[in-house]
Amino acid sequence: MSEPAIVLGANQYGKAEVRLVRIDRATPRHEITDLNITSQLRGDFQAAHTEGDNANIVATDTQKNTVYALARDGVGAPEEFLLRLGRHFTGAFDAVTGGRWEAEQYTWSRILVDGEEHDHAFVRGGTETRSSVVTFDGAQATVISGLHDLAVLKSTGSEFHGFVRDRYTTLADTNDRILATSVTARWRYNRLDLDFDRTFADARRLMLEAFAQTHSLALQQSLFEMGRRVLEAHPEIDEIRFSMPNLHHFAVDLGPFGLDNPHEVFYAADRPYGLIEATVQREGAIGNHPAWDGIAGFC
Amino acid sequence: MSEPAIVLGANQYGKAEVRLVRIDRATPRHEITDLNITSQLRGDFQAAHTEGDNANIVATDTQKNTVYALARDGVGAPEEFLLRLGRHFTGAFDAVTGGRWEAEQYTWSRILVDGEEHDHAFVRGGTETRSSVVTFDGAQATVISGLHDLAVLKSTGSEFHGFVRDRYTTLADTNDRILATSVTARWRYNRLDLDFDRTFADARRLMLEAFAQTHSLALQQSLFEMGRRVLEAHPEIDEIRFSMPNLHHFAVDLGPFGLDNPHEVFYAADRPYGLIEATVQREGAIGNHPAWDGIAGFC
Amino acid sequence: MSEPAIVLGANQYGKAEVRLVRIDRATPRHEITDLNITSQLRGDFQAAHTEGDNANIVATDTQKNTVYALARDGVGAPEEFLLRLGRHFTGAFDAVTGGRWEAEQYTWSRILVDGEEHDHAFVRGGTETRSSVVTFDGAQATVISGLHDLAVLKSTGSEFHGFVRDRYTTLADTNDRILATSVTARWRYNRLDLDFDRTFADARRLMLEAFAQTHSLALQQSLFEMGRRVLEAHPEIDEIRFSMPNLHHFAVDLGPFGLDNPHEVFYAADRPYGLIEATVQREGAIGNHPAWDGIAGFC
Amino acid sequence: MSEPAIVLGANQYGKAEVRLVRIDRATPRHEITDLNITSQLRGDFQAAHTEGDNANIVATDTQKNTVYALARDGVGAPEEFLLRLGRHFTGAFDAVTGGRWEAEQYTWSRILVDGEEHDHAFVRGGTETRSSVVTFDGAQATVISGLHDLAVLKSTGSEFHGFVRDRYTTLADTNDRILATSVTARWRYNRLDLDFDRTFADARRLMLEAFAQTHSLALQQSLFEMGRRVLEAHPEIDEIRFSMPNLHHFAVDLGPFGLDNPHEVFYAADRPYGLIEATVQREGAIGNHPAWDGIAGFC
Repeated sequence: MSEPAIVLGANQYGKAEVRLVRIDRATPRHEITDLNITSQLRGDFQAAHTEGDNANIVATDTQKNTVYALARDGVGAPEEFLLRLGRHFTGAFDAVTGGRWEAEQYTWSRILVDGEEHDHAFVRGGTETRSSVVTFDGAQATVISGLHDLAVLKSTGSEFHGFVRDRYTTLADTNDRILATSVTARWRYNRLDLDFDRTFADARRLMLEAFAQTHSLALQQSLFEMGRRVLEAHPEIDEIRFSMPNLHHFAVDLGPFGLDNPHEVFYAADRPYGLIEATVQREGAIGNHPAWDGIAGFC
Repeated sequence: MSEPAIVLGANQYGKAEVRLVRIDRATPRHEITDLNITSQLRGDFQAAHTEGDNANIVATDTQKNTVYALARDGVGAPEEFLLRLGRHFTGAFDAVTGGRWEAEQYTWSRILVDGEEHDHAFVRGGTETRSSVVTFDGAQATVISGLHDLAVLKSTGSEFHGFVRDRYTTLADTNDRILATSVTARWRYNRLDLDFDRTFADARRLMLEAFAQTHSLALQQSLFEMGRRVLEAHPEIDEIRFSMPNLHHFAVDLGPFGLDNPHEVFYAADRPYGLIEATVQREGAIGNHPAWDGIAGFC
Repeated sequence: MSEPAIVLGANQYGKAEVRLVRIDRATPRHEITDLNITSQLRGDFQAAHTEGDNANIVATDTQKNTVYALARDGVGAPEEFLLRLGRHFTGAFDAVTGGRWEAEQYTWSRILVDGEEHDHAFVRGGTETRSSVVTFDGAQATVISGLHDLAVLKSTGSEFHGFVRDRYTTLADTNDRILATSVTARWRYNRLDLDFDRTFADARRLMLEAFAQTHSLALQQSLFEMGRRVLEAHPEIDEIRFSMPNLHHFAVDLGPFGLDNPHEVFYAADRPYGLIEATVQREGAIGNHPAWDGIAGFC
Repeated sequence: MSEPAIVLGANQYGKAEVRLVRIDRATPRHEITDLNITSQLRGDFQAAHTEGDNANIVATDTQKNTVYALARDGVGAPEEFLLRLGRHFTGAFDAVTGGRWEAEQYTWSRILVDGEEHDHAFVRGGTETRSSVVTFDGAQATVISGLHDLAVLKSTGSEFHGFVRDRYTTLADTNDRILATSVTARWRYNRLDLDFDRTFADARRLMLEAFAQTHSLALQQSLFEMGRRVLEAHPEIDEIRFSMPNLHHFAVDLGPFGLDNPHEVFYAADRPYGLIEATVQREGAIGNHPAWDGIAGFC
């Protein structure tokens, strides 16, 4: 028969959004780690799809249990914990030849009481979330780290002009606008022997400084500078990808009410919004590393 | 005829969620105020409902325009801006005999560049939102202020035992648990001549300190102490209402894996959750002040 | 001492969002009931707040267990199930003198296979949610039923003109606009011996028909007609409250591109939106029935 | 110098979430098309990133205007409209060498009045959303269609047993469980000359029927059968990808209350959830077609 058969292609499965909170109580000054973990296995799961035969299936419930059991020994940086998970699953089961482990981390600060940090009382930090993705292909692991929902805004120091004008163009040039975005960034490491917490903190600092300091002629320009600074300071990073909405703040026309508006009163719009996405990378870096599979778009 | 007529009861209308961002550019060190404002008018709008006669209707579009126009002169504390809106609408239109104006405020911090606060670059602060509701009944205004989504957690110092046991009770007593909640609080002022920004900051501080310092035998006890401290320090507040979910963090049973769990590994559950709601007030305060109409439940 | 004491005011507590799915398997043609239930108790809980003494506290975990245990005997209409919960809790515990039980219900339709309804395979119905609130004050119960997120739209048959014009008015009159809203409605019954499922279905039908058939000069007019029809057909309902956003659809000005736009191309805006809220009631009905406490605004 | 330069990698930009509602008023029986459109351009935008030079930049505002202007002539199937947008942008601007256009479509049904479909009054249909992605690489276009948030549930006819047991396994075998998921599916067409509306409706029908009819030994098995039926019936489709959470419904243990639970009372859990993702394809189909770039994970 000439019709090609219908077959199973790429696949993975696991337990998503395992909410793990670990309290380190070694001293009265507790430490909190708050994670949302997804574990997904890749390997020989053909029979489950075509026959309903689960002989090779590590139940997603077992994957969840394993997350909690391994956390008994401590968690550390989320990247380290995901690497432990990946080594466990690829090592323990013949049918599991790889997988993908992901974590979101939420930030907590200590509550101040009379100006002093409390030992075991915490308040949630900013709106942003730290993210980590660890992929195993056999024993080969790749780490991608990042953050999302980091909302930033400049009240001046942003221009936009000189763009193409066609039949459908109505936008006026501007030499002063609000520039606001919510940064999603992910970067791929070329090594695993790293202090992931320290690098994360430094990459975040560099991106914020670049956003603040760049006199922006296009959001693309701010984005590129943010990536450039991270790559320059961190040779352990090969590439960084950004997805940055241009969250429009329109100066309201108060003319009908007999008022001027010297860039002081703005309407913050929801939709539509600009969407700027790009990779900044070292020349010659792998353009389409498989560790990015499963990450939407540029982030 | 014996059937009672079908008539219009209480009603209000307006424009909801007017997103106003105001930049104060008086000096190179810009200030940002980021608000989400809802304006609702009360008065004689019978004919619009029964006849479609809009002669008394101030269009919701006009209410939006007015928000932006009045912001031209500056905004200040959200409570002050809402009072201005209320005075304007109740003063300008005979048919408008009252109304309700509400604001949510989002926090921005300055980006640090080389350790210095930047003049015009900002990063969003915490997850919490400040709220204000101003009600006018004729010329009589009442201000309710508050906050929501203030997430806090204690990793110890919380017990729960001694509760009722019946046929359906399976919960064990505990002398050590995580206590986590997301505080919604609103308090009613008995005066208008206040520094609303200062009082807000102090009420927030007092609630955080009370949560941290209270050794809790019930979330109700923490709640009451949070309210008590605010009322003791602020005679300008007559009552404070709380809605506080008990966000359960269950210690995972690692026994099946041959492991103990000395209160270190927790599962953070989504639903269901406990929900604790109460008013703390001065004795003799009005129990059901009409300014609370339109606020769900306890908050 | 002259300072009034700081005391506990109104309060309630319980378990929120207990997700209950019940399958009726009496015949091979299964029935599904999908509910999200909140149970809140009112009574003498002073000591828990001021002393951390839980002697009167029915644990929220016990409330959850009770929901599932009572569901063993079947659920029926959500209003009937909430009445059973209320009778149980107010009857079983001296300290519990009342309470509030709430349910959201999600709709499922049967999957069609070869045009026939399947016995035990379902697909989620519309975006709307049915709601019920039962309040007990002692043995006295009141039922409020309703729905939310019922999105409706008319592509013509809506006008808006003749409104007030002042300094801040820029909106033009229109004789043809899109009218779109997402209906939230709640109605209060004056009896308990009802077929709540049948009444709900009929009220929903009447509101949809009224929205469709009313040539609208104001969204207020559509709202009032929707309420009037429900009250006329259902003497067991004393009042109905609506909260209806005016979800603006703006005709796009295609003039700059040399095109007309005969009310065909629209931009659907997110924020701000109009917000129309009103009660339609029988003359002489109680204006502010305590069963509405805990329901935000008009709904 | 030995350090590789830091350069711009893959990038795209555009306007996201342009909310377009088109009313076809050719006859009194109006038709409504409700879309959320994202336009993203690819090409030579190097200078914008590195110099802030916008000479090649078609403003995102212009992209939005173009969406509305082209809708003046009618929209048709979302796939057709996206193809028109892609042809326009790649044809009109030398610097634009490709791009990605995406649409979500929301469903509206006619309101029934006295059992008759109304001409111009509509109510939102189900919770699901239809999706389309059109990618241009030069003049070469690829269409991917799909849907998401299609919630389905079987109350019996699902088993799960025979899986791997290790140290961390606690899950019991089951021969009868609820199987519930929210289907995200996307399929890639190998042709463009299609009736996209008809194919979409048929693929949706086939997936629902397969879910209902498959006696499931694993969610993977249901998934594969859903894909198989679509590919068998539609040679114009080369592959279909699924992301299907296993939305756990746990039978509640009523034993502590002296009650049995014959698979009738369930707790619907939120997190964690199983997550099953797979591709079903024709043997020999391109495994990693570039049109999938920018689509998260399997969908």
